Amino acid sequence: MRVDPYSVEGKVDYDKLIKEFGLEKIDDALLNRIKKHTNELHFMLRRKIFFAHRDLNWILDEYEKGNKFFLYTGCGPSGPIHLGHLMVWYFTKWLQDKFDVELYFQFTDDEKFLYKNLSYEEVQKWLYENMLDVIAVGFDPKKTFFVIDTKHVGIMYPLAIKVAKKITFSTVKAAFGFTDSTNIGSIFYTAMQAVPSFLPSVLKGKNIPCLIPHAVDQDPHFRVTRDVLPKLGYYKPASIQSSFLPPLTGPEGKMSSSEAIKSILSTDTPKQVKEKINKYAFSGGQPTVEEHRKKGGNPDIDVAFQYLRYMFEESDEKLAQLEQDYRSGKLLTGELKKYAIEKINAFLKEHQERRAKAKEILDEFILKV
Amino acid sequence: MRVDPYSVEGKVDYDKLIKEFGLEKIDDALLNRIKKHTNELHFMLRRKIFFAHRDLNWILDEYEKGNKFFLYTGCGPSGPIHLGHLMVWYFTKWLQDKFDVELYFQFTDDEKFLYKNLSYEEVQKWLYENMLDVIAVGFDPKKTFFVIDTKHVGIMYPLAIKVAKKITFSTVKAAFGFTDSTNIGSIFYTAMQAVPSFLPSVLKGKNIPCLIPHAVDQDPHFRVTRDVLPKLGYYKPASIQSSFLPPLTGPEGKMSSSEAIKSILSTDTPKQVKEKINKYAFSGGQPTVEEHRKKGGNPDIDVAFQYLRYMFEESDEKLAQLEQDYRSGKLLTGELKKYAIEKINAFLKEHQERRAKAKEILDEFILKV
Repeated sequence: MRVDPYSVEGKVDYDKLIKEFGLEKIDDALLNRIKKHTNELHFMLRRKIFFAHRDLNWILDEYEKGNKFFLYTGCGPSGPIHLGHLMVWYFTKWLQDKFDVELYFQFTDDEKFLYKNLSYEEVQKWLYENMLDVIAVGFDPKKTFFVIDTKHVGIMYPLAIKVAKKITFSTVKAAFGFTDSTNIGSIFYTAMQAVPSFLPSVLKGKNIPCLIPHAVDQDPHFRVTRDVLPKLGYYKPASIQSSFLPPLTGPEGKMSSSEAIKSILSTDTPKQVKEKINKYAFSGGQPTVEEHRKKGGNPDIDVAFQYLRYMFEESDEKLAQLEQDYRSGKLLTGELKKYAIEKINAFLKEHQERRAKAKEILDEFILKV
Repeated sequence: MRVDPYSVEGKVDYDKLIKEFGLEKIDDALLNRIKKHTNELHFMLRRKIFFAHRDLNWILDEYEKGNKFFLYTGCGPSGPIHLGHLMVWYFTKWLQDKFDVELYFQFTDDEKFLYKNLSYEEVQKWLYENMLDVIAVGFDPKKTFFVIDTKHVGIMYPLAIKVAKKITFSTVKAAFGFTDSTNIGSIFYTAMQAVPSFLPSVLKGKNIPCLIPHAVDQDPHFRVTRDVLPKLGYYKPASIQSSFLPPLTGPEGKMSSSEAIKSILSTDTPKQVKEKINKYAFSGGQPTVEEHRKKGGNPDIDVAFQYLRYMFEESDEKLAQLEQDYRSGKLLTGELKKYAIEKINAFLKEHQERRAKAKEILDEFILKV
């Protein structure tokens, strides 16, 4: 198992990650506390898909004192948007709606240029495409601010160097596995990722708590950020961290833009989704119908079932029924896949409708400084 | 001996530096070639104070073909301006006037914040003060463009990351002596220093030769820059490199803003200059007048004489006379110092008069993008 911002490999043991990264598990007491403010709990919380956090109790303490937090999440524009991205962003929208808070959304075009074998122009193309997807999630344009590293660097760099001055090469070597052959832009980059966690505090001239919803592989960046920010007089950002939506190929690794074949994309047509799920989605079922009826399937490793659990089946009852029927052999792989395809396509239909109109309102989302 | 952008120590052996850095010596053939275009030769060239270069013949080849170069030099705002800075800048002005070329003048406020134990605000204060001195040199405001790292980062950063992607930690470790405890902003910084060497080419959409007049300790930055720029489709910048104006304490090291006591500052009053030279300037004379008359002084290590040679005595004949009289014992240390004080104060008087009016025209110098 390897989990850092630049690679997720193997079967991820989340309990081990909690220990290694020093995270706190999301427990029922914390869920009940959230529910006091949101009335209902998002199914990604009920199912512990968002499974860990840092300082979320402190965020709620402050919120209860009337000191609202802001949300910060982001996107590295290096390829098409897939369901793994959307999962975190739709959950972030839920948080925005329920807590009525501002969202600072960072596009790390510098990072992707520096880390990937992509030209500057290719990254800029993906930046534009990815912004359309973020808008399609339905964030409140009045409370959502896009921060684009190469565009907003005028306000970001003077802050980033204050962060960078407090971080040594040793630290980033340990956090990200850098070596002597890492390029010097990549070495600097984590300082840019730190900036949105205190940028609103700078812009508004007062210290505002920050909550970062993100997939757990980004934690090393924010661990470094959390060490530095108090030294600059800002709060440590809190976080709420998700597990990884599995790639089509099965329960190891994560869905990834650089391996589009393993991923369902935000722009996939119904036909493409059908083909990908039917052809590629790793199945927990048995090789023959007879055997399946007799032994039953394994939903824990079945990708179609996991997609329903992670993103597309909001009803716990329905999900439990599917699980039971699949385990018993009553529900066949083909039937389960068919149901998942319908749910995914219904979701993508709405997303794509909003995405088609996104460019008209793109300007409203760009942070004005 | 140690010579890099972050420390100059010991007695500098310039011939050894030429070999170690891989520089070319400025020889008489090259001086004659320059003279064809300038009519006269600046005394800093005649005296080989600017002693080495890279690709200066190529710069002249292009110039003779009608392909004008631009000049690029800079200032790290971390303290007051001293004579060592002014020496390079006044020579740069001579180049601007004689070749009628544009000058891009970089203020590396990010660098000084990252490398020095100075707050961001202190660096900004020095930035302002230092800009006044640069203007006081008398550069043509129509052909001189200030590039301030934290202010122009909007255009610089997208270019700096293209440079940074081509430079590994190994490279900067070797060039600047970085270790695992170097901060990640300092590690990235050389990419920012590379930018002005091709920024005009980017802004004007055509490849323009660049000539960098600088003190030889900056060479490691431009060595790295020269490796990278052809990979991005730009010319390698050429350079013309000076030796170091000695500190008041004698021929080792260089005059430095962080040791104001060793330096004569651009804002020193006539009285301060007199006191510094009389009290602190290392003398090549003998302990007593009698001994001096008998054995003579050594102008090679005499700071007052060296200041005259480096900056303040334009006449070679007068300088030769002073040298001869000092060696013979005819000229006493006190007399030599008195003459140097007069020359320095006459120079600073004019500089300070222009400096007093500089703030009125500061805006004209800032690069507009």
